[in-house]
Amino acid sequence: MNNNLCIIMAQINTLVGDVKGNTALIIRSIQEAQKLYTPDLIAFPELTITGYPPEDLLLRPDLHQHVEHALTQIAPHTKGLSAIVGYPQLVGKNIYNAAAYFNDGILVSKYYKQCLPNYGVFDEKRYFKSGDKPCIVKLKETNIGIIICEDGWEQEPTKQAKDAGAELIVSINASPFDLFKSRDRESIVLNRVKENHLPFIYVASIGGQDEVVFDGGSFAMSRNGEIQVHAGYYQTALTPVYIKNKLLQKGFLAPPLPDIEHVYKAVTLGIKDYVTKNGFQGAVLGLSGGVDSALVTCLAVDALGAENVEVVLLPSRYTAQMSLDDATTLADNLHIKHTTLSIEPTFNAFVNSLAQEFDQYAEDTTEENIQARCRGVILMAISNKKGLLVLTTSNKSETAIGYSTLYGDMAGGFSPIKDVPKTMVYKLCHYRNKLSCVIPERIITRPPSAELRHEQTDQDTLPDYETLDAILEKYVELDYGLEDIINLGFAYDTVKKVLAMVDRNEYKRRQAAPGIRITKRAFGRERRYPITSGFRCEE
Amino acid sequence: MNNNLCIIMAQINTLVGDVKGNTALIIRSIQEAQKLYTPDLIAFPELTITGYPPEDLLLRPDLHQHVEHALTQIAPHTKGLSAIVGYPQLVGKNIYNAAAYFNDGILVSKYYKQCLPNYGVFDEKRYFKSGDKPCIVKLKETNIGIIICEDGWEQEPTKQAKDAGAELIVSINASPFDLFKSRDRESIVLNRVKENHLPFIYVASIGGQDEVVFDGGSFAMSRNGEIQVHAGYYQTALTPVYIKNKLLQKGFLAPPLPDIEHVYKAVTLGIKDYVTKNGFQGAVLGLSGGVDSALVTCLAVDALGAENVEVVLLPSRYTAQMSLDDATTLADNLHIKHTTLSIEPTFNAFVNSLAQEFDQYAEDTTEENIQARCRGVILMAISNKKGLLVLTTSNKSETAIGYSTLYGDMAGGFSPIKDVPKTMVYKLCHYRNKLSCVIPERIITRPPSAELRHEQTDQDTLPDYETLDAILEKYVELDYGLEDIINLGFAYDTVKKVLAMVDRNEYKRRQAAPGIRITKRAFGRERRYPITSGFRCEE
Repeated sequence: MNNNLCIIMAQINTLVGDVKGNTALIIRSIQEAQKLYTPDLIAFPELTITGYPPEDLLLRPDLHQHVEHALTQIAPHTKGLSAIVGYPQLVGKNIYNAAAYFNDGILVSKYYKQCLPNYGVFDEKRYFKSGDKPCIVKLKETNIGIIICEDGWEQEPTKQAKDAGAELIVSINASPFDLFKSRDRESIVLNRVKENHLPFIYVASIGGQDEVVFDGGSFAMSRNGEIQVHAGYYQTALTPVYIKNKLLQKGFLAPPLPDIEHVYKAVTLGIKDYVTKNGFQGAVLGLSGGVDSALVTCLAVDALGAENVEVVLLPSRYTAQMSLDDATTLADNLHIKHTTLSIEPTFNAFVNSLAQEFDQYAEDTTEENIQARCRGVILMAISNKKGLLVLTTSNKSETAIGYSTLYGDMAGGFSPIKDVPKTMVYKLCHYRNKLSCVIPERIITRPPSAELRHEQTDQDTLPDYETLDAILEKYVELDYGLEDIINLGFAYDTVKKVLAMVDRNEYKRRQAAPGIRITKRAFGRERRYPITSGFRCEE
Repeated sequence: MNNNLCIIMAQINTLVGDVKGNTALIIRSIQEAQKLYTPDLIAFPELTITGYPPEDLLLRPDLHQHVEHALTQIAPHTKGLSAIVGYPQLVGKNIYNAAAYFNDGILVSKYYKQCLPNYGVFDEKRYFKSGDKPCIVKLKETNIGIIICEDGWEQEPTKQAKDAGAELIVSINASPFDLFKSRDRESIVLNRVKENHLPFIYVASIGGQDEVVFDGGSFAMSRNGEIQVHAGYYQTALTPVYIKNKLLQKGFLAPPLPDIEHVYKAVTLGIKDYVTKNGFQGAVLGLSGGVDSALVTCLAVDALGAENVEVVLLPSRYTAQMSLDDATTLADNLHIKHTTLSIEPTFNAFVNSLAQEFDQYAEDTTEENIQARCRGVILMAISNKKGLLVLTTSNKSETAIGYSTLYGDMAGGFSPIKDVPKTMVYKLCHYRNKLSCVIPERIITRPPSAELRHEQTDQDTLPDYETLDAILEKYVELDYGLEDIINLGFAYDTVKKVLAMVDRNEYKRRQAAPGIRITKRAFGRERRYPITSGFRCEE
């Protein structure tokens, strides 16, 4: 009896909610895999049919009708082979996060995910009931245990599958990128492999979905803990894993990515998918001559192509000539359309309109905010008129402390570097310039400034960004308290000031555009703080 | 032995995260109850010490240190009586939603909530582990079973307490208002009472917290299912419940509220608490002469007082004289400051600035959005300058279908009628005018218009609001599919158009200001839809 297996890791890019489109993609992938290989099994990612995460669409009965229909459409395409497809299974009033196992045209087995993540960006207990049984399917002479994503992060489901006779684990996943995630996944799977002495195939999805990016990175690990096949990141792939006499064979091995390249590519994919999946023609953004908008412009061009990105220079009386010069140089280097529209006439119109109303009041940040909002209105008008998505350019450091204007520079549909700390913005600029030197050096080296008043620099009101980012990481991502942070050697006054800024700007973040998660804890669905809050780090 | 009990239902208004302030409020309430009555037990709402819901503050170790400290501060104030106080209990790596039972200065028992809601606005499984034991405390000769909120919505915890010897149930709650909630609570408790033949004391909280309002309505039900004491809604109260020989005595009975009054008061409290708990001086809004801004103005004045509300009339070339007249009359009737600032100069400045950029393009909704955004910039400038919160005036019907401008009329910190359907906006206006006739009749009777082009009315592009609201309720709140709604007798084209508008405007809602939940499903934390979505009602 032939006991050789060819298992395809189908690393595909689904669209959440698009059951029809995802079903067509699954069927196309099966057909393509059959053209390229002689597959025994094709394994698709978690919740393939709905995409991940479908969120409250899961509460809709009509979604489940669509899914039922999809299963019947997929089945006949599995004639002569097997397929594992993720989907939500409605049973009475319960929903399970399920894997369907098709064999030779028939849905023969179902597995229900047992470990449901309900932390960080995950809300699976809002929707799903836990399964409680392993699922072992026999393919030729090999018993395969099917598990789903979080199941592999706990010990029990893999052990349970082994106890039930599994000789190989196939795990289907939808695991959002963060800086540490690809290493985490591989070391977690290594633990499962060591505990159970079973080969392990980890099938990942790719694609951007609102605030998360699925980076791919499907891999197959032999029973002695070596990665023998690796599908690589940020691309769809049908990657074969060959198994001979139950031993996993060495196959395609994508090289690992350096961290900063990982981030750059994650953000690029996030932009591309947000723009295209939401049906925009392209993107527009305001280019200031500063480092944040320079980086976002590069990312947008690399994501969408130069022909689909426009930038607008929006100078005021406070804009330095070198800002305009550098912005123009960058735009020229990237071969993108750029327009210059002074905000002076609109700014002056507002100041005049409000002169009487404000005659008892001194000038303050109100006037700075009006400048930022004039820019927001102009960019949104171009967006509305041309069907271009406005990209905002706030980084994580600014987002944390509220160093940005609501409806001003925060106006826009997507915020690509929202989870990138300022210190990493510089690293990404250096990385991009190594590919081809497009960002003028002065943009990177000059002191950062919002240019909302004369001679302003960020460090007039903020600590240097090395210090700021270090404090923010401890407070926002690691839940350190005030004392914990001071004990690391930071000055009391600085820490207290920074923490207070983070606390009081939750209202701004609540109205911010979504952006791509790259750290251990991003603002947005992952950090759920009340706006109305009396919490203070010091009691 | 004296077997008479006086139990105080402490219906108090806490501030989320403000452990110090809430602790002081608990202690003050104990002292006040002792002055007014001779209490044996004072019962406070769920998570009294942190307020509800503390969200991700619960993940902070420093919050738990504050809570630990608070428990030691409260204890000595319970000398000579008992108190039940809600708080989060950290045990190793687990957190429980707990009730502390203090007796005579000592924390003697703890109860851990068993049923953790993780649906709708609730995320308790993100934070808490479930308890598995009843908690029975003996007060004089009576065994009291303590439960927490959702525990009472299931059968088991009350039965378990009864089986463990409870003769009386005290349930501490934080139950957010919706139109049906007060009836729901009382009928659910009636079920528990009928099942177990035990008297039941339901202690509720009051106050606004971001998107939810706790309406109060604490009550005590006798073992034969009669409400004998009712603390009433929308006010803090220390309401005594007297028990003689284990029989609940008739006491203070607040009258029930008609639905529309309930909504009006819920929204009023929501505004008041959002503004004051976030430290604003007052509120400002744009008054258009339409019904939505008229209602929000009345609500704001009733919440904050006329001296703390300003309105701005922001006419354009499309504003009818009767809009200005009616807006002025309303402002005068309410005795509030009103200013008129034409948006023509700023609108023209934008159109001129963009003339060259747009010379190949026809006029479209872009120009309408610019008008709305000029208003947004002016209101935000007044907000920034004077420390006033901008209230937005979109109702639920508009929010659902995206009939509003991002960063335009959507600009603002709080959106009081965001969950009020347009048809209910009219009902609330009639209700308000019955108290005192402040809204000019013409505001209510004229055809609604955004006044963004000549002779525009809402019904140029939308079905009538009765139809729209009926469709929206089915789709948004009840998850009906396209066919289900058509089967109710609505026209296919209308339904399809409305559903598509709801689907494609998720991106706007994501950046909308928070508003007060009043229906069975509000946009925001309760309806979590992906922005990027291929879901279509028709496959």
